[in-house]
Amino acid sequence: MRLSVREFEALARDRLPRYAYDFFAGGADDEVTLRANENAFTRLSLVPRVLRGHRERDLGTTLLGARIAVPVVLSPTAFHRLAHPEGERATARAAAAAGTVMIASMASTVPVGDIAKAGGDDLVLWLQIYVQPDARITRELVGRAEDAGCRALVVTVDSPVFGRRERDHRNGFHDLPPGMYCENMRDLGGQRGVRDIEMVAGLSWDHVDELAAMTGLPIVLKGLMHPADAVTAVAHGVSGLVVSNHGGRQLDTAAATIDVLAGVASAVGVPVLVDGGIRRGTDVVKALALGAAAVGIGRPVLWGLAARGGEGVSEVLALLREEIDRALALTGCASVHEVTSDLVREARC
Amino acid sequence: MRLSVREFEALARDRLPRYAYDFFAGGADDEVTLRANENAFTRLSLVPRVLRGHRERDLGTTLLGARIAVPVVLSPTAFHRLAHPEGERATARAAAAAGTVMIASMASTVPVGDIAKAGGDDLVLWLQIYVQPDARITRELVGRAEDAGCRALVVTVDSPVFGRRERDHRNGFHDLPPGMYCENMRDLGGQRGVRDIEMVAGLSWDHVDELAAMTGLPIVLKGLMHPADAVTAVAHGVSGLVVSNHGGRQLDTAAATIDVLAGVASAVGVPVLVDGGIRRGTDVVKALALGAAAVGIGRPVLWGLAARGGEGVSEVLALLREEIDRALALTGCASVHEVTSDLVREARC
Amino acid sequence: MRLSVREFEALARDRLPRYAYDFFAGGADDEVTLRANENAFTRLSLVPRVLRGHRERDLGTTLLGARIAVPVVLSPTAFHRLAHPEGERATARAAAAAGTVMIASMASTVPVGDIAKAGGDDLVLWLQIYVQPDARITRELVGRAEDAGCRALVVTVDSPVFGRRERDHRNGFHDLPPGMYCENMRDLGGQRGVRDIEMVAGLSWDHVDELAAMTGLPIVLKGLMHPADAVTAVAHGVSGLVVSNHGGRQLDTAAATIDVLAGVASAVGVPVLVDGGIRRGTDVVKALALGAAAVGIGRPVLWGLAARGGEGVSEVLALLREEIDRALALTGCASVHEVTSDLVREARC
Amino acid sequence: MRLSVREFEALARDRLPRYAYDFFAGGADDEVTLRANENAFTRLSLVPRVLRGHRERDLGTTLLGARIAVPVVLSPTAFHRLAHPEGERATARAAAAAGTVMIASMASTVPVGDIAKAGGDDLVLWLQIYVQPDARITRELVGRAEDAGCRALVVTVDSPVFGRRERDHRNGFHDLPPGMYCENMRDLGGQRGVRDIEMVAGLSWDHVDELAAMTGLPIVLKGLMHPADAVTAVAHGVSGLVVSNHGGRQLDTAAATIDVLAGVASAVGVPVLVDGGIRRGTDVVKALALGAAAVGIGRPVLWGLAARGGEGVSEVLALLREEIDRALALTGCASVHEVTSDLVREARC
Ligand SMILES: Cc1cc2nc3c(=O)[nH]c(=O)nc-3n(C[C@H](O)[C@H](O)[C@H](O)COP(=O)(O)O)c2cc1C
Ligand SMILES: Cc1cc2nc3c(=O)[nH]c(=O)nc-3n(C[C@H](O)[C@H](O)[C@H](O)COP(=O)(O)O)c2cc1C
Ligand SMILES: Cc1cc2nc3c(=O)[nH]c(=O)nc-3n(C[C@H](O)[C@H](O)[C@H](O)COP(=O)(O)O)c2cc1C
Ligand SMILES: Cc1cc2nc3c(=O)[nH]c(=O)nc-3n(C[C@H](O)[C@H](O)[C@H](O)COP(=O)(O)O)c2cc1C
Repeated sequence: MRLSVREFEALARDRLPRYAYDFFAGGADDEVTLRANENAFTRLSLVPRVLRGHRERDLGTTLLGARIAVPVVLSPTAFHRLAHPEGERATARAAAAAGTVMIASMASTVPVGDIAKAGGDDLVLWLQIYVQPDARITRELVGRAEDAGCRALVVTVDSPVFGRRERDHRNGFHDLPPGMYCENMRDLGGQRGVRDIEMVAGLSWDHVDELAAMTGLPIVLKGLMHPADAVTAVAHGVSGLVVSNHGGRQLDTAAATIDVLAGVASAVGVPVLVDGGIRRGTDVVKALALGAAAVGIGRPVLWGLAARGGEGVSEVLALLREEIDRALALTGCASVHEVTSDLVREARC
Repeated sequence: MRLSVREFEALARDRLPRYAYDFFAGGADDEVTLRANENAFTRLSLVPRVLRGHRERDLGTTLLGARIAVPVVLSPTAFHRLAHPEGERATARAAAAAGTVMIASMASTVPVGDIAKAGGDDLVLWLQIYVQPDARITRELVGRAEDAGCRALVVTVDSPVFGRRERDHRNGFHDLPPGMYCENMRDLGGQRGVRDIEMVAGLSWDHVDELAAMTGLPIVLKGLMHPADAVTAVAHGVSGLVVSNHGGRQLDTAAATIDVLAGVASAVGVPVLVDGGIRRGTDVVKALALGAAAVGIGRPVLWGLAARGGEGVSEVLALLREEIDRALALTGCASVHEVTSDLVREARC
Repeated sequence: MRLSVREFEALARDRLPRYAYDFFAGGADDEVTLRANENAFTRLSLVPRVLRGHRERDLGTTLLGARIAVPVVLSPTAFHRLAHPEGERATARAAAAAGTVMIASMASTVPVGDIAKAGGDDLVLWLQIYVQPDARITRELVGRAEDAGCRALVVTVDSPVFGRRERDHRNGFHDLPPGMYCENMRDLGGQRGVRDIEMVAGLSWDHVDELAAMTGLPIVLKGLMHPADAVTAVAHGVSGLVVSNHGGRQLDTAAATIDVLAGVASAVGVPVLVDGGIRRGTDVVKALALGAAAVGIGRPVLWGLAARGGEGVSEVLALLREEIDRALALTGCASVHEVTSDLVREARC
Repeated sequence: MRLSVREFEALARDRLPRYAYDFFAGGADDEVTLRANENAFTRLSLVPRVLRGHRERDLGTTLLGARIAVPVVLSPTAFHRLAHPEGERATARAAAAAGTVMIASMASTVPVGDIAKAGGDDLVLWLQIYVQPDARITRELVGRAEDAGCRALVVTVDSPVFGRRERDHRNGFHDLPPGMYCENMRDLGGQRGVRDIEMVAGLSWDHVDELAAMTGLPIVLKGLMHPADAVTAVAHGVSGLVVSNHGGRQLDTAAATIDVLAGVASAVGVPVLVDGGIRRGTDVVKALALGAAAVGIGRPVLWGLAARGGEGVSEVLALLREEIDRALALTGCASVHEVTSDLVREARC
């Protein structure tokens, strides 16, 4: 068994063509935020508690009514078939086996219905959505999510326009290779074929309200960083938030997510997740200490998938599970709910 | 199209003779401030707002009564013909096309009148001035600025004496090559030929008052860093300020301009610009958030000019325009006036 | 004579097989805490006092009633025979000669009774204990400590589960080489042979109380980092504390010990020791200034032992003694009791 | 002419035998303080004032009644003949020519009387003294200082014991080469030959009082870092202080001098000098801003001397003079007395 998530990154780099690796690995502009997301964890220290041991730690928690076995969900990432022929199907199986939420990307290369089927009854599936300019298209996508049995919609709000990833430009990577498509965008609005996903520059709270009116599913906003927006989100009835800067792929020099998490989490009552740069069990414990209900991982899933398909994703999840378990034990926490803010302090730099 | 201003720097390095590249690139002494200007931006993080989108962003603003299309002006830099045979003419055309202010340097290698002509009616031209020991010379220069249709005078106050750029000493670069001259200094004071630009060690507020008495043009002070000086400047009737350390070419270890901007901007009511180390659209947004009315760029213009002449300058300006537009969209701002101070926070180092 | 403890590290690296060197040198996961322990000292500056000289400095102090000649004790480390054939016997002789406490590890490769004999009457010996799941085994170990004349029991509380040292996994180092055993674990519980040391995930304050009930020896808790736990420890009657993160071998990204020392020391009245990253006399003075009664060293002892057996350990201790003496002289302290908190300040980073 | 003091360092490294260069360059233990002294200046930024120009800057000031032309004195350094055959004679001539104070080291390789003669009437000479165990020896040294016309005694208080410079140990450098001696130590106490300089571990305020009773010369304490000691010093009637950590040669990890200067300077009314890491005119301005009456330089003098003898020292002083003049002009100060504390701020790191 691999010893760290980083080893999967190395394996993925070995196996993937350059353009694909770079698509997964890269960030916007100078990749300042990409690095900051990871480094910010190193600059937080843990102050463990002792002699509060329990024979076993309970890593489970509840998210929007669903019980999950580890406080780590799969953040939505595009194009899993670029990492492995089985694509999102393999990912779904691994998520189900690990007992956690998979947030399928709207830009998945397998349709959400097939992802759901591959995951089976055990999978808690959410669909991530970019609101489309034509509300009817959005509604149809929501319908597909409902039909697939998704239990929440995750609306990505950090992308009113595309961020610019220089690596993709340098590699000339602008389209999926032949035979791969954004399958959720197929045959929408009464037209055959695959539509492009569009960004809506005018994305606003009205869109959130409209979406809420379309569905009974709980709505989670992903890509929020500012406490004031968190408060507004709750006023608009959203059920959860993901503090995220899109893994450093949208606004470069955006703050590291872990550095703004506490501000957001303390401003609202709904569950707050965070993603960006989570690579170790101790990162997860730090996020919990700063108020996260759970964390999301993006690239680690893709690395696992590229390295060994669904098994790789399972290994990544198992590794993190084991690390979280150890970190909880070593900080004196019997469960994720016992992780308190005094366990974390800023490292003297 | 190039992906970043930095690529133009690389192109310029390739194309220019060493002494010319170094003249443009270098700073005073150990170049601590030169590096600090750039690095200080990386150490500021953005905290974006979401769901406040608008279909389009308005990048325009008004400076001293003139409408400009982007919040980026061309800071005055000497010797454009060292970068490209067309020199300041090419720069002027690019500035006009971009719809922004060009601050011509008193040390331009094309006379200000010809710069104005090259720029055409669309160009908002300001002339930068070093007050000369002989007031009659200064007055004549002011007259030339007025004749050329300049709409403001920018008095550089950070240079009572010359800073020492070690690169120029090592390269033995002390004079312009044959055939290039500081054309604004030609045939002044009733004497034929080109006078040297002199620094006035005794430069004082009296000089500012004297200059104000010579002209009806608004006066902008460039090179101010201290809030107390800003307050005095306003008391002396100046119309604007440029927070600047001369791109690290005068006083080495002077603070990074972005680090003193907020102190100056919050002390006065007149528009405050800032230059030094601006390389990305997000740098501009950070400056706006800290109180700048607009920013200035020095070296990026020279790199564009050296790389591809006027087209290069246009490309640099277009690139920044696009980056600012994207950064505004991604921080939830419909215009430069919506950029508020809470969008910026210090990165944990 | 060697000039620094670091030189012994280099000698040890040269002499030991890779797996053994790595076992001694390594830390958990990414070794963030391992490095932080050492680096944190560099980021503390000394502000010396002058003209308070004394012909000689008194380096002695009293720990749990025992007089020691230097404020440096030997922290418990496993497997000394891996460093040198004489193993803990050699270490004990060096500790006795230096007039300080040796805390023998429960995982020593020489039985505690033999360590005591090797050390002789001068040695102040304490035994470190991992509470075992079966209380009878623990009691038997306590009995062996008492029989050996140990004057305190040090209960390691930072290890309810094993930390993961990646170096050991990569080197395939999981067991002692043939002929070496954890001798304290031999023939326990009425069974012949050597039992494995077990970690108790459920380790709790009850275990501390139980242990206290088993023996009249003072109890010291090792591995505490949080002030709240320190207060609880005193309420449970413990006689001393060692602020420790197990040399970065258990919970990675745990805070550097020197950074949490003052918080713990100021919360309680019992003597507080600290270990982790102590490599210089000035490190010791800083620890004293922040409230430590004395410090512990782990790896430096192993390096000395690997380099030159017992003589090496003696050299390491003599070197530190000399450095502490010099540091006290140069900070104007006649004894370890004169080291006050104003001698230390954070270095500007 | 050289462009920076650093260039002299490079020249010295080229010319000197390794052991001599290392003796001059080295610091105690890990040389943390040696580097910190220099780096701390980079982490202070200047916030210049503008439009307060004067045709000329007055660099002069008064120290203990003597007028000096630049706010830079020569800190005492041992063994100038190791740098250049003319040794301290050459240094004295350069100091006199520059119009500043030379603090001759007690460990000079030319007797203080001859230094005075070489310097001539213009030289303001002070003698640095290590109090000797035998008060009669100290008194005799004081007599020699008086006879030589010294105008102050500088008592070094940071050296109750020797610091350990590892470079000297590695180079086996423990004695001066044949033919060079600490000439001030010759024929003292009625005995022929050269005595060793001894450190007095018991150095105390009594020694200062004793010394004051021996002479009418003003006494300056060198090597003070703590405000409390500064206050005591004034109570003992000293006339000035040098904040110094002996150039990082005594207590390693001592704070950078510039970081403790303001604390000391604001605690007392007597003139406070500072040395350690001064390499640029801006460093001097920063020290003045933080309360120094003047600064001292150690190694730069030795580099100049090694590079080009007395001329080299003159060049170093001229270079610094020019840099200070420029720095004053560029910060808007007409004299060293106009340098105020608001000119300095911490750089964001
Ligand atoms: C290759 C890639 C594709 C992504 N695609 C999407 C997407 O389609 N929708 C979305 O909301 N976020 C997307 N993200 C962002 C992730 O959901 C998540 O915020 C980010 O990856 C977290 O950072 P990490 O990769 O450091 O764990 C993508 C990220 C990556 C790396
Ligand atoms: C090559 C060069 C020449 C310059 N010449 C002038 C000048 O003639 N007058 C002036 O006020 N500033 C001059 N500056 C300073 C610029 O106006 C501006 O403050 C600086 O370049 C901003 O920093 P940046 O280059 O990092 O954008 C010059 C800068 C450079 C790099
Ligand atoms: C090789 C090694 C073995 C160790 N074994 C033990 C042990 O058996 N029991 C224990 O409480 N601590 C053990 N420790 C931790 C030390 O007691 C001590 O906390 C740590 O080494 C201090 O850090 P330093 O090595 O930087 O001085 C061990 C440390 C090392 C390096
Ligand atoms: C080679 C050398 C010899 C020194 N000798 C003495 C000395 O004899 N007496 C003394 O008080 N300080 C001595 N010092 C310390 C200097 O006076 C001064 O504090 C230090 O050099 C200042 O730091 P700088 O070298 O970075 O300028 C010496 C320093 C050096 C580098």
